Amino acid sequence: VRQLTKATHQQTRAYNQQLVLKTIYDHAPTSRADVARMTGLTRTSVSQLVDESLAAGLVEEVGRGRSSGGKAPILLRVDPDAREIIGLDVGERTFVGALVDLRGHVKQRLELPFTRPSAEEAVELIHRLVTHLRRSAERPILGIGVGTPGLVDTRSGTVHWAVNLDWQELPLGPLLEKRHGLPVSIANDSHAAALAEFMFGSPRKADSMVVIKVGQGVGAGIVLEGRLYQGDGSAAGEIGHVGAADRTLPCRCGSVGCLETVASVRAMLERAAGLARSEPASLLHDPAGALSPAAVADAADRGDETARAVIDEGGRALGAAIAGVMSALDVRRFVLVGTAVGFGERWLAAVRAELTCRALRRLAATTDVQLGRSSQDIVAVGASALLMTRELGLSLAR
Amino acid sequence: VRQLTKATHQQTRAYNQQLVLKTIYDHAPTSRADVARMTGLTRTSVSQLVDESLAAGLVEEVGRGRSSGGKAPILLRVDPDAREIIGLDVGERTFVGALVDLRGHVKQRLELPFTRPSAEEAVELIHRLVTHLRRSAERPILGIGVGTPGLVDTRSGTVHWAVNLDWQELPLGPLLEKRHGLPVSIANDSHAAALAEFMFGSPRKADSMVVIKVGQGVGAGIVLEGRLYQGDGSAAGEIGHVGAADRTLPCRCGSVGCLETVASVRAMLERAAGLARSEPASLLHDPAGALSPAAVADAADRGDETARAVIDEGGRALGAAIAGVMSALDVRRFVLVGTAVGFGERWLAAVRAELTCRALRRLAATTDVQLGRSSQDIVAVGASALLMTRELGLSLAR
Repeated sequence: VRQLTKATHQQTRAYNQQLVLKTIYDHAPTSRADVARMTGLTRTSVSQLVDESLAAGLVEEVGRGRSSGGKAPILLRVDPDAREIIGLDVGERTFVGALVDLRGHVKQRLELPFTRPSAEEAVELIHRLVTHLRRSAERPILGIGVGTPGLVDTRSGTVHWAVNLDWQELPLGPLLEKRHGLPVSIANDSHAAALAEFMFGSPRKADSMVVIKVGQGVGAGIVLEGRLYQGDGSAAGEIGHVGAADRTLPCRCGSVGCLETVASVRAMLERAAGLARSEPASLLHDPAGALSPAAVADAADRGDETARAVIDEGGRALGAAIAGVMSALDVRRFVLVGTAVGFGERWLAAVRAELTCRALRRLAATTDVQLGRSSQDIVAVGASALLMTRELGLSLAR
Repeated sequence: VRQLTKATHQQTRAYNQQLVLKTIYDHAPTSRADVARMTGLTRTSVSQLVDESLAAGLVEEVGRGRSSGGKAPILLRVDPDAREIIGLDVGERTFVGALVDLRGHVKQRLELPFTRPSAEEAVELIHRLVTHLRRSAERPILGIGVGTPGLVDTRSGTVHWAVNLDWQELPLGPLLEKRHGLPVSIANDSHAAALAEFMFGSPRKADSMVVIKVGQGVGAGIVLEGRLYQGDGSAAGEIGHVGAADRTLPCRCGSVGCLETVASVRAMLERAAGLARSEPASLLHDPAGALSPAAVADAADRGDETARAVIDEGGRALGAAIAGVMSALDVRRFVLVGTAVGFGERWLAAVRAELTCRALRRLAATTDVQLGRSSQDIVAVGASALLMTRELGLSLAR
């Protein structure tokens, strides 16, 4: 059981420092007086804390606001260009590295495709990405954020298991810290995506939301009451290997009938390709083995029953899994991200329909499921958001 | 998004007051010096805070400990009899009221069986229970805790929907507060059971655990990082209406194939009774419609294949649902409570077996599923624990 400790003066001060920075971040442009009002801190405390942030270059003065009688107040904001973060998406098909500013904008990006590197080669590729991005950075680097598939212990920075990269018990965080001398945060890719969506995604924010990432695999990232929730072993949201109904296909995890064997993009495209071969009348064609979600969605739009069946089946299996997550957590906001978003509105409708009949109707009816922004950099941006959060306290995530 | 506010001196003081009380509660018998060491507070602060708790009668001095050189220190504990809480279990078949001490011991209990009272009659029954228990209390009453099936908003004390009691949007908390002039906490019965198990159940505590209550319905109570987690609308853990595989039985919620139609005690006993009628060779007999989980478990022990099939099927459906909850939350400790515990070790084995093949093996293998204590008062005790927690801060639950 976690040991409680007293609230000390230093903790209070550090807390208030992050509180002021976060308040300016969330409400910019804003004045010292407004920050004092919103936080309940005295004007003197706010001025001291703001001065420190000005000296560190994190906050800047951006003109004067409207006067409410006296002198017009100086307005403040967090300078988005004060720092850059190196965000990495260690994907299953490519490695993406990005320089990300404090508002989640990608300033530069690098993409390295690869063909199943060894565990050591994969680590070397990451070092090269970091070195290259660091050289081209135009601002001080705050640190490195990494999103990777698989089971990750965020606290120790260890990748327990990433099947496609052949990583087992790899201390990636400590390795990067040692080589580059920068703070490092590592998270599962779905967790990173959830943080990106929570901090930079939808304009209307909810306290709690679940982001479901559907690509080569299926995983969820969970934000509860403003914090990224990662679970006892940082494996929260590993729903890709929950059993899907009526299925017996073998899964790469060694089990059978997992959700990923029905609802992942990989599974859906394999099924579409198989049906395209066996049904000559289908509008689906896969001469080069390069069917995409958009191509399947397009065939479905043009009335192709085969394409519709593929989309509906994958969407329904995902909807059933979401019903389970929604029922367990009572979170009413879900955002779908990843390459599966290319399956479009029909897929979303299938997810919603199955959710409605697989959970208590009263709850399902008030659950909002949306397609997220389809940025291919969501994991890199989210990984940088985690680092930003830890170093500056810009969100409540840990 | 929740508004952050500053950490004030008063908040720090209130926090430290609860911290001292909780530290004494968790480590009794203990001394002022040990409390200072464990909390990091100064001895002077601890002495002041302890004096207040002594004056309130919450803490008592219980002799002297071993000397480590100087004078032997005075030992402290929270007096379990300092207060009593009225804990109510508004069940689907009986109403139970109990006077509970600060250690979760039931000092007195009252049970009222009923046959489907009207919504108003049910509320009157509760008032009668409270009035009666209050009269017979021998200690100051701290407040009233209520556990009820259905959808409950803990914050406002409203029961949104309790199908068996015909309650809809009932402001039960305010009604009880107004009539009895005492603080009231209301929670879903599975949430209350989880808090009882977390605070008073297993000796080895985990930070996070999920309690699955299987009786007339199926529901989960979730403790995350030492806090009762209730979700956006206090409906976390409503897993009874998640779809169970391959099933099409109608559910009382209006849907079909819900987990409750396969895995609840009601469903399992109905199935057992049906099979007992159709299979004359079965050891199961149900002449009076009063088959119990223990009777089915007994028949299974004696080799009856029908009884075994009933237990295995219900257990497997539950195991699949638990796999979903475990995968979403990455909580590795599950405790099963409720009348289904009477199905015994064979049922537990079926749950564990299905969990193992319905989730990532690496996670399932380190997940601990146990039968909880089978006290029939677990909901009343848990509801009182919630009240105790809110009024005194004895756990981190909110």
